[in-house]
Amino acid sequence: MKLFPTALEDLIDKFASLPGIGYKSAQRLAFYVLSLPKEESEDFAKAILRASQSVKCCSICQNLTDEDICDVCADVRRDRTTVCVVADPKDVAAIERTREYNGLYHVLHGVISPINHIGPDDIKIKELVDRVAGGEIEELIMATNPDTEGETTAKYISKLCKPFGVKITRLAYGIPVGGNLEFADDATLARALEGRSEI
Amino acid sequence: MKLFPTALEDLIDKFASLPGIGYKSAQRLAFYVLSLPKEESEDFAKAILRASQSVKCCSICQNLTDEDICDVCADVRRDRTTVCVVADPKDVAAIERTREYNGLYHVLHGVISPINHIGPDDIKIKELVDRVAGGEIEELIMATNPDTEGETTAKYISKLCKPFGVKITRLAYGIPVGGNLEFADDATLARALEGRSEI
Repeated sequence: MKLFPTALEDLIDKFASLPGIGYKSAQRLAFYVLSLPKEESEDFAKAILRASQSVKCCSICQNLTDEDICDVCADVRRDRTTVCVVADPKDVAAIERTREYNGLYHVLHGVISPINHIGPDDIKIKELVDRVAGGEIEELIMATNPDTEGETTAKYISKLCKPFGVKITRLAYGIPVGGNLEFADDATLARALEGRSEI
Repeated sequence: MKLFPTALEDLIDKFASLPGIGYKSAQRLAFYVLSLPKEESEDFAKAILRASQSVKCCSICQNLTDEDICDVCADVRRDRTTVCVVADPKDVAAIERTREYNGLYHVLHGVISPINHIGPDDIKIKELVDRVAGGEIEELIMATNPDTEGETTAKYISKLCKPFGVKITRLAYGIPVGGNLEFADDATLARALEGRSEI
């Protein structure tokens, strides 16, 4: 016999399919959502729908946005000659929090990873090369994670973009090697931005 | 400036409002939901809506169900003279998993807890007394958690129901004292059911 009503089992399964959530946690979350007033659980459902419908990639930097062009790219006070290349939208947020950077971004949405069958065409490298070919960009700061895949991606991009005469730099190794950009503390990230070196 | 599009910030906040989910985990979950194909994230939203709309309390035992009467109460093969009183629908699931119990349930949806301003009228005690007054029930098995609040609730209910001539028993202390019924293993729960004692 089934232990919970189908709709509840279903919701538990949905929560359990999220990364890092086991069955017991999923049960707890589903029961919590059920215990909310009806308007609040509806708000939750609507937030999921709204996010999945309205969030898209900025047509310039590929960062997540709900407009055609994201806030950073639309900001005229920012230095349009410097572009910081990151793997993930969360990395943009991490660098923005340092308040040390005034250029634009390019979000790759991944890194080259043969073991996961992710090649150069599966991430937003073509869009980056097109931007560089546009001629306005003078410096690319490679800010992929300092691990094998991040390094490989940075080298691959630097090879493609150097012919356009753009200066290509790399975040300084203030970030612990093998670590994850998303979890670096703000001070370390700021130091890494200051000490960037040419590759 | 905001770090993520409003719809995404909103979704992160919703996840962060769930119990045991911090901001970083909420971020990870929200990004994961965004990365899903549109149909799958819609399914997630629909599962929340469906659960919050269709799941209600069984009109007999107050357990969660999507019918008027839950599967256990509707099952004619079950012993209708014995009722196991639990605090939470998850406890019904835990006892059902032992396959040792063939009676009905009564779900209180909480325990008496003055410190949290939960009095006898805030949980489903009146519904239980009405069932006992109906005359069909011969034994109530109190299966609230073996902590102060669970014990208090059991004693309160036993005082109210004894005048109807019903036998009132308590789960044996096979369950570790101060523990939580939801996380007891099946064997321990089965032993606790066998060794129940009158109070």
